[in-house]
Amino acid sequence: MPKYQAPLREIRFVLNEVLDIGRFANLPGFENASPDMVEAILSEGGRFVEEVLFPLNHSGDQQGCTRNPDGSVTAPDGFKDAYRQYCEGGWPTLGGPVEYGGQAMPHFVSMAFEELMMSSNMAFAMYPGLSSAAVSALLVKGSDELKAKYAPNMISGKWTGTMNLTEPHCGTDLGLIRSKAVPNGDGSYAVSGTKIFISAGEHDLAENIIHLVLAKTPDAPDNVKGISLFLVPKFLVNEDGSLGARNAATCGSIEHKMGIHGNSTCVMNYDGATGWLIGDENKGLAAMFIMMNIARLGVGQQGLGQAEIAYQNAVQYAGDRRQGRALTGPQDLDQKADTLFVHPDVRRMLMDAKSFTEGFRALCLWGALQADLSHKAQTEEERLAADDLLSLLTPVIKGYGTDKGYEVATNAQQVYGGHGYIAEWGMEQYVRDARITMIYEGTNGVQAMDLVGRKLAQNGGRAVQALFKIVDDECGAAKSGPLNDFSERLEKANGELKAATMWFMANGLANPNNAGAGAHHYMHIMGIVALGLMWLRMAQTAQAAIEIGAEGKAYYETKLVTARYYAERTMPDAGALRRKIEAGSEAMMALPPEMFAVA
Amino acid sequence: MPKYQAPLREIRFVLNEVLDIGRFANLPGFENASPDMVEAILSEGGRFVEEVLFPLNHSGDQQGCTRNPDGSVTAPDGFKDAYRQYCEGGWPTLGGPVEYGGQAMPHFVSMAFEELMMSSNMAFAMYPGLSSAAVSALLVKGSDELKAKYAPNMISGKWTGTMNLTEPHCGTDLGLIRSKAVPNGDGSYAVSGTKIFISAGEHDLAENIIHLVLAKTPDAPDNVKGISLFLVPKFLVNEDGSLGARNAATCGSIEHKMGIHGNSTCVMNYDGATGWLIGDENKGLAAMFIMMNIARLGVGQQGLGQAEIAYQNAVQYAGDRRQGRALTGPQDLDQKADTLFVHPDVRRMLMDAKSFTEGFRALCLWGALQADLSHKAQTEEERLAADDLLSLLTPVIKGYGTDKGYEVATNAQQVYGGHGYIAEWGMEQYVRDARITMIYEGTNGVQAMDLVGRKLAQNGGRAVQALFKIVDDECGAAKSGPLNDFSERLEKANGELKAATMWFMANGLANPNNAGAGAHHYMHIMGIVALGLMWLRMAQTAQAAIEIGAEGKAYYETKLVTARYYAERTMPDAGALRRKIEAGSEAMMALPPEMFAVA
Repeated sequence: MPKYQAPLREIRFVLNEVLDIGRFANLPGFENASPDMVEAILSEGGRFVEEVLFPLNHSGDQQGCTRNPDGSVTAPDGFKDAYRQYCEGGWPTLGGPVEYGGQAMPHFVSMAFEELMMSSNMAFAMYPGLSSAAVSALLVKGSDELKAKYAPNMISGKWTGTMNLTEPHCGTDLGLIRSKAVPNGDGSYAVSGTKIFISAGEHDLAENIIHLVLAKTPDAPDNVKGISLFLVPKFLVNEDGSLGARNAATCGSIEHKMGIHGNSTCVMNYDGATGWLIGDENKGLAAMFIMMNIARLGVGQQGLGQAEIAYQNAVQYAGDRRQGRALTGPQDLDQKADTLFVHPDVRRMLMDAKSFTEGFRALCLWGALQADLSHKAQTEEERLAADDLLSLLTPVIKGYGTDKGYEVATNAQQVYGGHGYIAEWGMEQYVRDARITMIYEGTNGVQAMDLVGRKLAQNGGRAVQALFKIVDDECGAAKSGPLNDFSERLEKANGELKAATMWFMANGLANPNNAGAGAHHYMHIMGIVALGLMWLRMAQTAQAAIEIGAEGKAYYETKLVTARYYAERTMPDAGALRRKIEAGSEAMMALPPEMFAVA
Repeated sequence: MPKYQAPLREIRFVLNEVLDIGRFANLPGFENASPDMVEAILSEGGRFVEEVLFPLNHSGDQQGCTRNPDGSVTAPDGFKDAYRQYCEGGWPTLGGPVEYGGQAMPHFVSMAFEELMMSSNMAFAMYPGLSSAAVSALLVKGSDELKAKYAPNMISGKWTGTMNLTEPHCGTDLGLIRSKAVPNGDGSYAVSGTKIFISAGEHDLAENIIHLVLAKTPDAPDNVKGISLFLVPKFLVNEDGSLGARNAATCGSIEHKMGIHGNSTCVMNYDGATGWLIGDENKGLAAMFIMMNIARLGVGQQGLGQAEIAYQNAVQYAGDRRQGRALTGPQDLDQKADTLFVHPDVRRMLMDAKSFTEGFRALCLWGALQADLSHKAQTEEERLAADDLLSLLTPVIKGYGTDKGYEVATNAQQVYGGHGYIAEWGMEQYVRDARITMIYEGTNGVQAMDLVGRKLAQNGGRAVQALFKIVDDECGAAKSGPLNDFSERLEKANGELKAATMWFMANGLANPNNAGAGAHHYMHIMGIVALGLMWLRMAQTAQAAIEIGAEGKAYYETKLVTARYYAERTMPDAGALRRKIEAGSEAMMALPPEMFAVA
């Protein structure tokens, strides 16, 4: 019964009308990304996910993965064939460099397509999902030989890639890892250890799986400065590119978990598996962060994707289900009850969802554009500015985006009443699937600390100051026009963000727990402001379209209403969050552990 | 791996020290509820749930219920034996009247024990859970004959009871129900129709199941004024009390759902089943509300129960798991990492949980005491005051309590990082189980409308005015002492509640959507204030204990710290919520349905 339709009109609005991607046509790498070409790609991509991936979403959840007695893993029915179609359609190659068989499309094109994957079938999307992150680390840090041998098949989708970081006793604190890599004397290493929570660690979709594994060499420091990154293929690859012996990299078990049942989450055992160093010894963390930053944006897209599909279905249900009468009097007199749309509290949940998904989609695509501009903008200044903003907002996209994505999915489920709790309606799966996004690739608490502990202070606070200024400038410019009220509210939220930042500067050095205690709230204020900026731009675009009498007036008016709703119903949280931050860490940190739960 | 320990110290603190139940010993019905007796009951109850119910919680979730080909339903392994022990221990009889075999203990005793049931095994607790609600309706509205025939076995637990309201096409809007009851001419009725989402509708724990079913008689008005309530037993009961023929009340299927897998959620088919009217024809809604109000308090307890067990486990994990170092420098130098307790963001989630569960437990027990006082207080004035407050706060206990319970369970799961997502750790079950509490017995949106649309205006706002006054008076009295800061913050939150109430008065009549648009936020402000009042009282109790040098100083100091945390970190939301309410319904209700999701 669940439905999904790729929200192409929304993506088109952001890319063509708000970001106006056409204006970058003169930049290297953008020449193939004309609005017409992007439209063609996304239309075809929408058709693909609607017809091929989405029909497998619920069945994949219900069936789950199977680990066979020989250690192989079988994905849910239909996944293998869908993956074949995915590769045949050239979808994995979208963003890869041309020299390794990619199409070298800008990030914003991949990002837009990725949303459609994440909505239609997140568990499926995770099979190839980490390949692009893994291949990025390989391309930046790997030797030419490794790149030539592995990158083309990873980019084509013939092989998939994984990230192996977590071990049973450590996740966030990677300095604790115990996996070892001992030189074999021929340039390769024997990698041994146990890795857990490895998404798509073993499956039957692709011919080979290329594991990127963090491990320590024999004499390495026993902390994060002693971590190296290794490429460990499931099957060794012969000189001619054919597959050789099975490597000692095996799936010990698959996890029974809350959601994403269609994806195999593996315990991976490395028993002297042959691997090759990527980048320099003891510099694995830097290589890992190349993967991680890409993966974090991808997880943000998962939050968006699950919020979007949950929202779409809630909208459908709100129109179909009749229950009660409007508070203002019966609306549909020929029916025994009105639709759920008449009830303000249902509207509240739908408008919260709508204002989040649309604002957050804009932020994600804007973030992808910054990734492009950070490499390809014409001046060093522009490249630096784009990199600053992307770096600052990556934890916000991951952390705030997935916190809200889960909340939106939960509210969309709530619209269904009791039916939302029943598996066949599909809503509860979106909540269960969305839940993981707050946890993996660094929990949202880790994102908050990345933001407050690292990103804020980098380069003397250059990035956050730039964000303040952008928001103030754009609010200032808009205040004289019809978006006066919106601009004033956004300016106020930006003021809360500034005040919270100042408070950290004044109180975080003396006691870093003060920064830690407010980090999560701060991440949320920045999310509110960042989405507010996107809404200001979307509202301006809509306003301009209405003023010139563009077609589709109702669509643009909807944008203005939704912007107003966002300002009225989300922005007030910024002030409350700031007050919480200013409470500091004293009460939070005061209790001895034994006083938490007293039986 | 999950653990649970009945939080008896916390319950004792609320009952004996804060509510001081000993002072009611002179009231009828309280004579058996001396602190010593209550202590003995709860100690034994704690042992029972820890040893018998809790060990079946995870296995019950994993196994679920089975509907057999003959339509019978088998509960998870161990449930039947646990239910036998539950009955043998006399637990179902706690609150029932003596004349039907009950122990007639005050509500606050049942309520305290119910929390332990809801924490240790919510799916199990739901088998007898609706019996007491059903029996209450029977006792208030049923004929003496029906009461004599059914009440004793329902109170002893020999039989269980159910509530049958929802039908496939209607849940909230009960006026739409299609189930029919046709007089048989002998005083009984032939009941026909399909009911869905019937908790414990069919199972193998008890000898008989007494269904309370809403249906319409042939000439009844086709709306809520034409609903009658019928008692429909699974097995007819002979004059001598023995079981007779199987009635045509059968389970058509059981639902596959997000959580509470251990409880059978049934589609019930009534095919001319024999039933008897409870109360007057067409007055079923009033009888239903007797059940419903009790059930809503029970659902609030479920929110508390799931929050509590999730919190307890998160505390355990935070002490066991070592990851990273304190921001202020390494704490445990003999270890490679510090425990999670050093991290402010982990503390944030734990302190949010602690300040909620303790405050909400106090509110639930205080609510149960109001239920007792509404019947048993010495003066009519006191009885009325207690009834007013309970009636006002029932939707808050259900709606706010379960919204927060789910949030707390989700945060407790978050403390576990990736392990929180894995079934064997148990945390994800608490989230899935908690999720239903926001939905059933009236969704939380329905609770919010009950509060704003009905309870606020009743008797000219007498109840809410009384609440305002209690809070102001107690804050006023406390402001000159060491709780000055807390009192000022609570007074401020109370001010937000008053302002929001005034806003509804000024804007809700002209456009009722303005009330609907703010109802959910209003329910949350009232929850914040109500828990704030409980924290003020708990803090005063703790302060007094410290001042007289009572034993267990650390425990009382913990209360003061937690109260402060609550004031600093939860109360600021009240202001933001008020601002959202004051935004009104315009933007929320502006969009035509077709503009919500545009592909």
